[in-house]
Amino acid sequence: MELLKQKITEQGVIVSDQVLKLDGLLNHQVDPKLTMEMGKEFAKRFGDAGVTRVVTVESSGIAVAFATAYELGVPLLFARRKKTLLAEPDMLCERVPSFTKGIVTDILVSREFISENDRVLFIDDIIANGDAARGLIKIISRAGAELVGAGIVVEKCFQSGARAIRDQGIRLESLVRIASLDGGQITFAD
Amino acid sequence: MELLKQKITEQGVIVSDQVLKLDGLLNHQVDPKLTMEMGKEFAKRFGDAGVTRVVTVESSGIAVAFATAYELGVPLLFARRKKTLLAEPDMLCERVPSFTKGIVTDILVSREFISENDRVLFIDDIIANGDAARGLIKIISRAGAELVGAGIVVEKCFQSGARAIRDQGIRLESLVRIASLDGGQITFAD
Repeated sequence: MELLKQKITEQGVIVSDQVLKLDGLLNHQVDPKLTMEMGKEFAKRFGDAGVTRVVTVESSGIAVAFATAYELGVPLLFARRKKTLLAEPDMLCERVPSFTKGIVTDILVSREFISENDRVLFIDDIIANGDAARGLIKIISRAGAELVGAGIVVEKCFQSGARAIRDQGIRLESLVRIASLDGGQITFAD
Repeated sequence: MELLKQKITEQGVIVSDQVLKLDGLLNHQVDPKLTMEMGKEFAKRFGDAGVTRVVTVESSGIAVAFATAYELGVPLLFARRKKTLLAEPDMLCERVPSFTKGIVTDILVSREFISENDRVLFIDDIIANGDAARGLIKIISRAGAELVGAGIVVEKCFQSGARAIRDQGIRLESLVRIASLDGGQITFAD
């Protein structure tokens, strides 16, 4: 998506050679029209996969996951992040570290809203080390549902998350791939 | 919105006479088509208010705020909730208690994305005691922006949040008003 690359170039703030801040278009402010285009693109790419449910993790993935679910005509489920003190029997929970936040959180999905009949498309805003994605993939598997693929807005190719997921045989599609943030510059992969 | 009332009746879980769990349609699972209808309704009600920006607080308000911003053709800004250890000079911050979570969090909005030229529509999923709303209203005011109104999906009339906001002279529109949860039953106000 050329328009998305252009927006990332204009609005992305390079914090370090590992961290790109995208508050202007993903993590704080959202351009609804552009986000709906992203949803259309994911719906097109996964249109033949028989998706029954789109799943994301709060919060930055919600807008694009909503747009994708709207285009596919299926429900959206957003996993909650919280510190859980007690195991909740009706919740599937995975503990994951967060690369950007430097903390550990629990990702929770209610068994009520995901079942073995589901064909799940996972959507998220950014993939770096892929910890949240891995946690959610485990939850989808524990629910007995089938993961048909992962749609990611921004893939940071120089971190291991996307590669590790593809190595598991999961179809991962990203809209924009960033090869490097070296030298204070965003270099796209294609 | 009759369809919304019907969904709330079907899927709402009464936890106590104060708390209604709406995980099936607002706080965990989202029906994108119904949510887009809610966005259209808010866009219609505030269509003449010259809105330049829709603002919500993560996470459950994001989907409906996105739909509203999409329909109005303006950017969406979602305030972050986090525990802040240090004051961040480019962030507007208000500390608020959370009724459902029983904790205190900080609500943060970057000065970069809200200015004195903005006419802001605040959108949220549920209003109970209105603590998050009050915090966000303070932030909008501190940014020098004008709050043109608040659009709330579910107003719990038996708690003080909505009334307190209307008493400040702010136009608050809700899609569904719940009068009581007494006797294990949802009673709508109109």
